[in-house]
Formats: sequence, structure tokens, C-alpha cells
Amino acid sequence: MFVQINWKPDKTVAIPLYLQIKHYIQTKIEDGEWTVGTKIPSQRKLAELFDVNRSTVVLAFDELIADGLLEAKSGKGTKVKNNLWSLFSSTHPTDWNSIVRKGIYQPNLPTIQDIHKVEPLPQFIRLGTGEPSPELFPQEMMTEILHRLSSKIQSLGYEEEKGLLPLREQLSIYLKSIGIQASPSSILVVSGALQALQLISLGLLKRGSNIFLERPSYLSSLNVFQSAAIGLQSISVDSEGFDIQYIKQQKKRQDASLLYTNPTFHNPTGYVMPLESREKLLQVCEDIQLPIVEDDVYRELWLDTPPPVPIKALDKNGTVLYLGSISKSLSPGLRIGWVVGPEPVIDRLADIKMQTDYGASSLSQWAVAEFLSSGFYDLHLEQMRNSLRIRRDLTLKVLEEKFTGIAEWKKPAGGFYIWLRLPSTISIRELFDTALKEGILLNPGNLYDPNSLHHLRLSYSYASKEQLQTGLNRLAEIIRKLLNKS
Amino acid sequence: MFVQINWKPDKTVAIPLYLQIKHYIQTKIEDGEWTVGTKIPSQRKLAELFDVNRSTVVLAFDELIADGLLEAKSGKGTKVKNNLWSLFSSTHPTDWNSIVRKGIYQPNLPTIQDIHKVEPLPQFIRLGTGEPSPELFPQEMMTEILHRLSSKIQSLGYEEEKGLLPLREQLSIYLKSIGIQASPSSILVVSGALQALQLISLGLLKRGSNIFLERPSYLSSLNVFQSAAIGLQSISVDSEGFDIQYIKQQKKRQDASLLYTNPTFHNPTGYVMPLESREKLLQVCEDIQLPIVEDDVYRELWLDTPPPVPIKALDKNGTVLYLGSISKSLSPGLRIGWVVGPEPVIDRLADIKMQTDYGASSLSQWAVAEFLSSGFYDLHLEQMRNSLRIRRDLTLKVLEEKFTGIAEWKKPAGGFYIWLRLPSTISIRELFDTALKEGILLNPGNLYDPNSLHHLRLSYSYASKEQLQTGLNRLAEIIRKLLNKS
Repeated sequence: MFVQINWKPDKTVAIPLYLQIKHYIQTKIEDGEWTVGTKIPSQRKLAELFDVNRSTVVLAFDELIADGLLEAKSGKGTKVKNNLWSLFSSTHPTDWNSIVRKGIYQPNLPTIQDIHKVEPLPQFIRLGTGEPSPELFPQEMMTEILHRLSSKIQSLGYEEEKGLLPLREQLSIYLKSIGIQASPSSILVVSGALQALQLISLGLLKRGSNIFLERPSYLSSLNVFQSAAIGLQSISVDSEGFDIQYIKQQKKRQDASLLYTNPTFHNPTGYVMPLESREKLLQVCEDIQLPIVEDDVYRELWLDTPPPVPIKALDKNGTVLYLGSISKSLSPGLRIGWVVGPEPVIDRLADIKMQTDYGASSLSQWAVAEFLSSGFYDLHLEQMRNSLRIRRDLTLKVLEEKFTGIAEWKKPAGGFYIWLRLPSTISIRELFDTALKEGILLNPGNLYDPNSLHHLRLSYSYASKEQLQTGLNRLAEIIRKLLNKS
Repeated sequence: MFVQINWKPDKTVAIPLYLQIKHYIQTKIEDGEWTVGTKIPSQRKLAELFDVNRSTVVLAFDELIADGLLEAKSGKGTKVKNNLWSLFSSTHPTDWNSIVRKGIYQPNLPTIQDIHKVEPLPQFIRLGTGEPSPELFPQEMMTEILHRLSSKIQSLGYEEEKGLLPLREQLSIYLKSIGIQASPSSILVVSGALQALQLISLGLLKRGSNIFLERPSYLSSLNVFQSAAIGLQSISVDSEGFDIQYIKQQKKRQDASLLYTNPTFHNPTGYVMPLESREKLLQVCEDIQLPIVEDDVYRELWLDTPPPVPIKALDKNGTVLYLGSISKSLSPGLRIGWVVGPEPVIDRLADIKMQTDYGASSLSQWAVAEFLSSGFYDLHLEQMRNSLRIRRDLTLKVLEEKFTGIAEWKKPAGGFYIWLRLPSTISIRELFDTALKEGILLNPGNLYDPNSLHHLRLSYSYASKEQLQTGLNRLAEIIRKLLNKS
């Protein structure tokens, strides 16, 4: 008995036919649909079924055999082979998938996977992507920086544990400009703020403890903490910031080990915590000995007036671990961020970083040090703010024109995001799927708060101005259509 | 009651006095010698005791106060404050420090910590360091590469999950040249081979299982696996490779989840597994369904004749995960390595990589792609082999002259290392300490095999030729002195 096949590769898409065929067969096997020993139709037969040349099927088979998924025996045809690695990967640590976040029901959203699959395809308009558009990349400055580095770099060895000293010196100067006193020895260079979170999860927190964070929060879209068996406990935020009474009451009961906040141009809401709320939060956290992790990667992207100082700038007792990065303000591809905190903590995190990847790319570290010391970074930030302001204002204009009555939003004072509230009759999953079919990639709000089923994270940072306009117009139409249907 | 102090900063070393003072006080507090509430002598008094300016003490105090270790109350002097972060970091996951490696007693060696502290100090001769000397860095080629990139790079965004496609395409071509068929989709770009090991530990292995590895092994000097609660089980190796009977017998009993091997110019012994042993090992591992991780980062550094093909090249069933890197052959600072394996495994590891650091530096990935596609990499490897050959032969000559009778070694056919066996009356710790005092940094063998108390890992890759000569001469004298003493 052969398997039934009523599928054909799609000749209208850019993916090579043999890869489509390979992927189809692979999925059948991985999903357990084609179990071990299943006989596969002959290559001739498949070529017919798939409406392709036989050589295309041969290519796909060759790779599947090399991967250990199929085996061909002469005279006996081709069979599904017991795949060592697929068996093997089913024995990964139980933590990884099975730890349930305390107090938050975490649905197993296929959305993030879908987003990752679609992102590399150029034909989609990405209305939620949280990275700077390639248009915003300072290509001329980078050219100049690379020229300078080419005469500056003598060799590229492993750097010091905490990162390239000239970069940490530049960061120390930069941090002073935003009110933070930090000597180079209290700064750790990391490969982006996400890695800082991973180091914290590995190095400072105990299994089974909880992190307090804003609801919604970027952190909720990540697995980094729950993979280390640490729970996430969302706390409501209003215009004054966190519900501080709740934090005080619940710290012990929830076994909270730190509070994570993104108080400046918050991802995904765009919220800015007022100075007074920062002071209060710090005071309470000091009192109850709850360390703060302040994620401040959007700080430089203010569009109207500079934001309040970082919480870290108010911190005289080493309560705050501060995270910064150039991923949002300059280039995510350089993969450079930093952590600032008391030296014992920085030492501990540096030690773990050395044990996991031996430090960030020296070439990237040199490039960022040069951006900072040359003054190019400041110059670039000015240009970046101007471009982002135009994008934000355009987005707000289209929202005003097309979304009045079908959505609510606030004007963000900086950063990338608008937190768009939709009518509760809209199914966020249906909206995502429908938009995807029409060439629009969305970031649904439940990535950032599993209980939030009526929000989208819009980003005006990534799509081109034309795409923003077209995409938002089309999105408004889709929403109206769905509203009429319901 | 004030604390007793009979210590002074060392004015002959390059470390700033205030940092020495800060470090001294910090250590006292961290070690629990100065407990919370301990009164610190006045700045005036300390300046006297330390024989420094008062402003130097003030600087140190300022940083200690900012770190939360000291507190100054007006009129009440300065006290040790309860440090939130030091309390905090004592609650790290129990795994991290307390998981004992099954079957291997792992002494808590202060040696690695010492090595890390000394490495940045330029006055030491590093006779064991496993990285290419800055002298071996192809500076002119790098200059040309950076020039080319400056006109090529349009923007530096997040790359695809598995890494920059042009790099994976180049790697696919390169891998073919060493006998490995791998399409770009079965290659994952990582930030060095160490990160690959971390991804494997996080993504593929279950807690409590064991890894089989060579005795000695580079892996024994790392915490990456036991931090994920995975044990290391060393297996003896002779000229024919692993004890295969033992692997067969013990696989189930030890709950072995994979076998790690570094079969080509092994770290730290320089050993090369013969082709026949590779075939046998693969056969057995296929039979007992024990996946192999082949760490092949020294392959290109052959000095006499090219080594046998990788085990991966013999693998028709997806049993082998293959690790490569340019850290040893070109530049560790670029932080670029790769993993090759069956697609489901590569997909899983790529997904984890995205969740921990969003991929390797794009700039580094572009640079390596350009090195490969331009032919510069091959050209550089030729130069590198020539330089390393000279270094190896010089080292062997000095060993012949000075170490005959006091040590045993084999001529390595490639890589960086010579595994030097010393007389059993020598205490490796005493040797390490004595050599350090004489300006020589050693890598003792017990880093790679806790039971091996009579070996050193020599490396001819890092120190300059003059340093190799001077350092080895001095080392021979030290050994003779210690032998005479015992």
C-alpha cells in the first residue's frame, strides 16, 4: 500500500520545486503521517503526481536520504526510515516546552512561527515588524566607518571578558550623557539586549521564581525565561506606571526575583513612565529588595521631547540592571547591546557569557566604538528621529482617516509602536490570516499579552512610507469587511 | 571596632591604585570577611594605611557606594551595606554550581579563573593559549575585505534564522571541498563552535543524560553541558581511537545521549583519528543509535599532509552533527562558526538561537562570506600553515634540547597543541604557580582531564617565536628546579 497524495508543488512561488517536494515529504514524516516503513511511490510515479520532471523528484529524494528520513533499497523501492534525530529531539529537556507560566495561560500560538516564515519573503508588507527599515540604515557613515576600521584593526582576537575596552570606554561616556555613572568595569557588552536577558535567566535567577513585568510586554513573546523554568507575572500598568501596591503585596507570595520594565517608549504600547512614577517604583523596589531590570533600547528614538532620565540614573544603591542596545537606533545586524550594573553582577554575567559564546563579534564592537567616538552616532540619531517622525505622523494621519470609528490608539512620543485597539467582535486570528492572504504581515497583541485578543502592535519603523499607506488602507478595508460579516 | 588592614596597593603594576583598593575592599566584602554593618576606617586613615592620596580612596569609595557595597552616613562614617545583588546572586539556579558530573570528580579548580585574570596582561608569556597569535592575522586581506564590504553592504538587519544566505552558500561550497554534501538549509551559522555546543545542550539533550567524550577533552574545561544538568563521561582513547567495546556496552547503562569527538588535531593532545577508526566509530554509533557531534575546528591547520575526511563525510544516515569555525584558522574575534546536520535538527537549533541572541553579527557574516568567495581564505590558510609549521618545528626543537629526560611528547601533525607529559613527582599546581611568578601562563592538563595531574597543554599558536623560545627555556629550568627539590 502506497500513501495517498493529493498535493502539487506551487509553480507560481519562488521556492524551488524540489525544495517544496522535500518539505512536503519531510512534514508528512515529521508529523507522523508517514510512519516508519511507509512505502513511497516510485520517482516516476511521483513526478507524474507532482507534474514535475523526474530529476526534480530525484533531487528531493537525495536530500531526504542524506538527512536520514528516507531509505532506498535496490529492487525494493523507497521507504520512510526511522530517523535517529527526530527520535532524538523528542527527548529534549522537559523544561523547554512543558513549563507552564504561572498565572498566565500561554496558548501555543502558531503566530510567531508564521511570522518567522513570512518575514524573509519580500512581497509582504510588514506592519508590525520591530526593527528599523533598511532605508534608515546610514550607509554612507558605515562606508566611512569600515574604511577607518580597515586601517585601525591590527588583529581580531578574543576580547576581554566584558567586551572591547575602547567600546566600553565610549559607552561609559555615552551613559554619562543620559545621567548614568558607569565605569567601563561595570559595563558588559552583549550580542543585543535579548542575550542580556538570557544571561540573567541563566546566571541570576532561581528556578521556579517569577519575574514581574508590564502587561502587555515584549517579554511575553519570548521563551527565554520560561525555558529556564522562571515564570512571568504580568502586572497592570496605567498612565502612572505599575500598580505599586500590588507589587508590594505580591512580592513574597509570588516569589518574585526581579521586576522587568521597559519604561521609555514601551514595546508594544509606546508608553512613557513619568519621572515621578520612576522614582516611586525605584523606592518601593529598594524597600522590598526587588531588583529592577530596565530595558531602555528605545530611549534615543524620542520624536517630540527627550524622555525622563532612566531609572538607573536615579539609582544610588545598585538596585537596577540597565540594558541598552543599538539594534533599534542604528542596526540590529551588528548585534551589540550592553548591560550596566553593580560589578559583582556584571562579573557573574560576563563569566557566563564567556562560557556560552566567548563574547560578541570584535568587528561589530569596533564598528560601534567608532560610531560613538566619531560623533556619527549622534548625527545618525538626528536623521533617524527626523525620518521616524515623518513615518509616525504619516501613520497617524492614515489612522485618523481610515480607522476612526473602528479602532483606538494613542499618539506615541517616540519608539516604533502604536498599540491599536480593535472592536471586540474581531477575531485576531482571523484578522491575521486574512491580512496575510492579502499580503500584510501583522503582529497580533496576544503575542505580548496572551489575554489581549483585541490589539495589534503597529510599527511605523519597518515598512516603506508607500507600504505604510497601502498596507494601512488595505488593513482598514479588511477590518470593515470582518465587522460587516460578524 | 574597625577592621584590621595590613595590605597596600602595588605601585609597581599597571592597575590604577584606586581600582586595586576598590578590588581589595570588594573582595573582603564578597568573601564575607567584612560582614554587613562593618565599619570602614575614615578616608584619611585609609589613605595613610594605603600610602596613597586621599582622592584615590575617595574614587574607590564612590564606586563601592554606587555598587551598593558601602554606605556613607554623614557624621557616622562608612559601613558595609547589605548588598542586594550579592544576596541575590546567591540564589542562582542550583544546577549551575551543584550538579556533579557523573563518574568524574570535578575539582573546583581556581586555575581557569587565574588564567582569565592573567590573559589580558601583556607581560605574560602564554604557552598554552589556544588561539592564533595576532601575528597570524591577515591584516592586509582584512583591509581589502572591509573596503569591499563598505560598498557591498546596503543595510545590516536581522538575518534569516539560519544565518546570512550568501555565507551559507559559500559554506556549502567549502564543505563540498572536504567531502561533506550540505545544502544551505542544513547549515546553521553560529557565533563560534562553543555556541553550537550550548544550543545542543539546550535544544537536543535531556537533563540527567550523559555525553561520551575523549579523555582528555577540551569539553571537560567547559561548564556548558553540566550547567544544563548533562553529565560528561570520559572514554579512553588510544592510537586507534575510542574504546568501541566500552561504548557499546555502556551506552544504555550510562544513558548516553551523544558522543562528542574532536578527531582531527585533537584539543589538547593533537591526536588524529585514522580513517578506519572513523568508519568503525560511525558504524557502531549507527548501530546503537548514538548520535555523534564532530568538532572539526582544527581541520584546515594540517602541517604535513591533509587529514582523513571528516566522519560527517562518511555519514549517509544523518548520524553526525558537524561543527566548524574560523576561530582557529582565521580569527576568533569574528565569532563565526557553523553546524551541519539533518534539517530537523538544524531547524530546532536555529529556533533556539533566534530565541537567545537573534543570530550572529551580520557584519562578521558578510566578512567571512567575502573571505570564502574571494579565495582569500584559501590563500590565508596556506600562509597560516607555513607560519604554524615554523612555530611547531621551533617548539619541537626547543623541547628536544631542553626537555629530553624531563618530559614526553609526540610530534603533532597539525592544530595548535602538544600534550606534554611530566614526571609524576611534579605537582601541577605548584608548577602553574611558580611559572606564573616567573611570567609564564600555563594550561595545566587537569583542565581537560581532572584525573590527569601530570600533563601540560602546550600551544605553539599564540606566543611569538621569541616568547616560545624564552618561555620554554624558562619552563624547563623551573621543572628541573622542582624536580631537584622533590
